Amino acid sequence: NTVVGVPRESAAGERRVALVPKVVERLKVRGLDVVVEPGAGSAALIPDDSYVRAGATLGDPWSADVVVKVAKPSRDEIARLKSGAVLIGFLAPLTDAEGVRALADAGVTGFAMEAVPRISRAQSMDALSSQANVSGYRAAMLAAEHLTRFFPMLTTAAGTVPPAKVLVLGAGVAGLQALATARRLGAHTTGYDVRPEVAEQVRSVGSQWLDLGIEAAGSGGYARALTDAERAEQQRQLEQAIGGFDAVITTALVPGRTAPTLVTAEAVKGMRPGSVVVDLAGESGGNCELSEPGAVIVVHDVTIAAPLNLPATMPEHASELYARNVQALLELLVDADGALAMDFGDEVVAGACVTREEP
Amino acid sequence: NTVVGVPRESAAGERRVALVPKVVERLKVRGLDVVVEPGAGSAALIPDDSYVRAGATLGDPWSADVVVKVAKPSRDEIARLKSGAVLIGFLAPLTDAEGVRALADAGVTGFAMEAVPRISRAQSMDALSSQANVSGYRAAMLAAEHLTRFFPMLTTAAGTVPPAKVLVLGAGVAGLQALATARRLGAHTTGYDVRPEVAEQVRSVGSQWLDLGIEAAGSGGYARALTDAERAEQQRQLEQAIGGFDAVITTALVPGRTAPTLVTAEAVKGMRPGSVVVDLAGESGGNCELSEPGAVIVVHDVTIAAPLNLPATMPEHASELYARNVQALLELLVDADGALAMDFGDEVVAGACVTREEP
Repeated sequence: NTVVGVPRESAAGERRVALVPKVVERLKVRGLDVVVEPGAGSAALIPDDSYVRAGATLGDPWSADVVVKVAKPSRDEIARLKSGAVLIGFLAPLTDAEGVRALADAGVTGFAMEAVPRISRAQSMDALSSQANVSGYRAAMLAAEHLTRFFPMLTTAAGTVPPAKVLVLGAGVAGLQALATARRLGAHTTGYDVRPEVAEQVRSVGSQWLDLGIEAAGSGGYARALTDAERAEQQRQLEQAIGGFDAVITTALVPGRTAPTLVTAEAVKGMRPGSVVVDLAGESGGNCELSEPGAVIVVHDVTIAAPLNLPATMPEHASELYARNVQALLELLVDADGALAMDFGDEVVAGACVTREEP
Repeated sequence: NTVVGVPRESAAGERRVALVPKVVERLKVRGLDVVVEPGAGSAALIPDDSYVRAGATLGDPWSADVVVKVAKPSRDEIARLKSGAVLIGFLAPLTDAEGVRALADAGVTGFAMEAVPRISRAQSMDALSSQANVSGYRAAMLAAEHLTRFFPMLTTAAGTVPPAKVLVLGAGVAGLQALATARRLGAHTTGYDVRPEVAEQVRSVGSQWLDLGIEAAGSGGYARALTDAERAEQQRQLEQAIGGFDAVITTALVPGRTAPTLVTAEAVKGMRPGSVVVDLAGESGGNCELSEPGAVIVVHDVTIAAPLNLPATMPEHASELYARNVQALLELLVDADGALAMDFGDEVVAGACVTREEP
């Protein structure tokens, strides 16, 4: 049988794991064997014996035929893969050319979850979206945590406090989930995106649409970069609008590029003391000019949080969603008996593949 | 004019302040002058100039006729009060007899917010309730923060995750707010209390009632202590029930006594790995046998948080609600011109007063 190995993640702060026990069960049914490194689930509070009960064995995951990871492997980890092995994970193909080359040199066939084509047949493998759902949820929670005020309206015998006003910039999966979560919590929510076609989606989660009159739809569901004139106009209008919100959550990313600045220092200065900015683009330089990626700071009495790797802060479900994405991709790579049978003529297989062992 | 002084709170971790600018404005209208210590609002991210714009002056609050505080004063602070001064705050009359005696020795007339009678005329002064609202809200947020799973049901292309199951023990103001907040976030919520008459209130916030068949209604809206037999039966049944929940929030307090143990070590052991206990009774010894007050620990892969002073973690609105309670009490203590005129024949004035200057 094809053996799937699940290492313990080694990156700092990474609490996720590539497979969860429920998915191990399903892979067993498909004829795959699973070897889990002891402690692989411990940061996600998933004990080893849960994997064993699901049919996995505990052992060395690196000698497996297919190794499944969350974060890209370190150089040491690449050295432990056997030549001809298949590796699945977030391999950062757009930003880590050297890492991809190291995989190729090691004779590894690599599939990057980020490179899965965004077509409807591959939706079940869309790990960027599944993890963005987690990020958006956690971003709304972080905004509520750092705000010195309530999100919901509260009525007490001594009077009423009004609901918080939350603005979400960027209405992709993370932005929509942040809007939906903030609204669930009782906030008054408003969304903005340079792609006017997402206005309907913003409204569908019960939020208002902030219309700045700037359009910049790009390809693959992302926005294109704005022209200088568009950016200046956007900045001017956003600076005016942002002062009216208690919390601003930013989620604007352009793949392979530095994140656009949406919340300037001047805009932060215009916010009411006690307000909050949660910047989800910290890993790409940040959407807020004052963000310090990985830190929570207070400037002009406004709290600015730029968390890194938010999905890792909710590790069990983030892992479960990711594992299901990995499962869907794995099922595309094996035949009915669970033997590896990769069809590189398949658009999804070819699209996700970033290095391929020469036959 | 009567002068009201607002010191900067000195207790560790206390981010609240006894008056906020909005309430300063209203007190000015009632003929009171307000002196705010510079930086009094800074931990709540309320700048000094907000107080000044509301009509306060910055200066020494301790020489005022009436000093309003959140936490009970330190011995040094008591020494700074002038003889004959009025002090309003959480003075802990049931648990800090020495502090109350020190106030009496200093010739201070002290009003304890905890001692305001729980009658309908005094509801607007009920600071225990207003702060319990904050605690309950924050407790639900903390449970969501520490849970490794989603609160809401999530549907993605790769499948669905079910909503979290949240149990709240103790259905007072904090418990009901925790239930309401967890439910807003999409969790499936269940409430339990030894006072059967609150079942309707639990249901009114969209939650199920966990009926263990034990009743212990006491006075003042609190529960009485259980008998040994009742406690054993409650423990046995709770241990069985708790294992079915992702998050358990405990809010059971008996005034002036150690908090009852509701979540035993055995019950924690029976919870699914990754689950969470948030114990709001940390300041009174905790409702969970394993709680370490002030800390977040992981035992048997279950996260147990026993936060202290949760209202201080949302300082602006906690302060605003508290300040309105203080305002309502102050208005009862002054005449139409804003001069002190304390009627100790008034049930509320007499009830709240814990020390009184001998005339």
